[in-house]
Amino acid sequence: MIKFTIVTLFAEALEPYLKTSMMWKATEKGLAEFEFVNLRDFGLGPHKSVDDTPYGGGDGMLLRCEPIFDAIESVKANDPDAKVILPTPVGEVWNQEKAREFATSDAHYIILCPHYEGYDERILSIVDYKISLGKFVLTGGELPALVIIDSVVRLIPGVLGGETSALIESFSDGDNLEYPQYTKPYDFRGMTVPDVLLSGNHGEVDKWREEHSK
Amino acid sequence: MIKFTIVTLFAEALEPYLKTSMMWKATEKGLAEFEFVNLRDFGLGPHKSVDDTPYGGGDGMLLRCEPIFDAIESVKANDPDAKVILPTPVGEVWNQEKAREFATSDAHYIILCPHYEGYDERILSIVDYKISLGKFVLTGGELPALVIIDSVVRLIPGVLGGETSALIESFSDGDNLEYPQYTKPYDFRGMTVPDVLLSGNHGEVDKWREEHSK
Repeated sequence: MIKFTIVTLFAEALEPYLKTSMMWKATEKGLAEFEFVNLRDFGLGPHKSVDDTPYGGGDGMLLRCEPIFDAIESVKANDPDAKVILPTPVGEVWNQEKAREFATSDAHYIILCPHYEGYDERILSIVDYKISLGKFVLTGGELPALVIIDSVVRLIPGVLGGETSALIESFSDGDNLEYPQYTKPYDFRGMTVPDVLLSGNHGEVDKWREEHSK
Repeated sequence: MIKFTIVTLFAEALEPYLKTSMMWKATEKGLAEFEFVNLRDFGLGPHKSVDDTPYGGGDGMLLRCEPIFDAIESVKANDPDAKVILPTPVGEVWNQEKAREFATSDAHYIILCPHYEGYDERILSIVDYKISLGKFVLTGGELPALVIIDSVVRLIPGVLGGETSALIESFSDGDNLEYPQYTKPYDFRGMTVPDVLLSGNHGEVDKWREEHSK
């Protein structure tokens, strides 16, 4: 079973998403497991500090090595094979191909959520995957962590149901199945459904969908 | 003040993120406002249904027009100028440039979160912005909604603090400021900080950072 351990300062902000809808269903069915590790528990000194100022000057605070290494090692003590993911704008861009690789891996992933302005470079020495969502900046790695988990877990057979999974497989193979779709009512405020879709002629329907794919 | 209204079936999964860390700080300081509209309140019939099967056949359920139009119109009744955002894999790819445009717009955005397998095409007739996070598929528009909000709100002056905001502006102009950073301790398990960063020579530090930018 695939497992995700999220190392973060903000578990309370993320946990509700994983307890809702499809992510909840995945855990209920025993198809995925989610776990949180509170980075603050590994902080230094009386204030459980996890960050400090950069050498060489500059704005912002950087995550220190000690709390990160200690948190990761606490997880690896029970599972030495767990892989570490770091969401970072300089990582490899996430895509459906990678989501599918992860979904079929049956592995244990530790997602390290950097917050604040950055992290000590030496942290990269224990990172297996640097992943970027795209060319934008976020306040932390928490949302990328949820995006990675959601896009992977929904591909695990049984999470969305068999037939829908098959549809997704086609999409993730690169075929673009994003044609316009319509449901009831036939006439909504004068906007009607293309009549071919009501024809019952599957060949014509398929042809129309192919012609209108985006 | 910028305002985001999120139309979703899963407010309880998203609200904690917006009440934590920087997003919470933005609302506390009166720099941004977040609001939820429960799409279920606009559902049809005794089960408050919001979706139905596709015309022409196919897997999955599509969001119907009526609940969506009614939900959007309930918001626009108080603010006719509010703009509608739809996260969808066929939208324009989100980037830092767009985040900055939104951050300086001072507008009211309604983010419509499609869930399930898709939506009735006629819904696009009331959408101002179709936005994609990238080439991957998620269970719904909820995480893209949070990503859009987070990347925009952190750019509003005062949310992260002045100096850091300036740093971000440089990044978002396209300059790549992602050089390796280091904080204490100097020696962590035999991995040391490059000595130039401790030299106190700002010219040398800047040169090193430029040479090591990714």
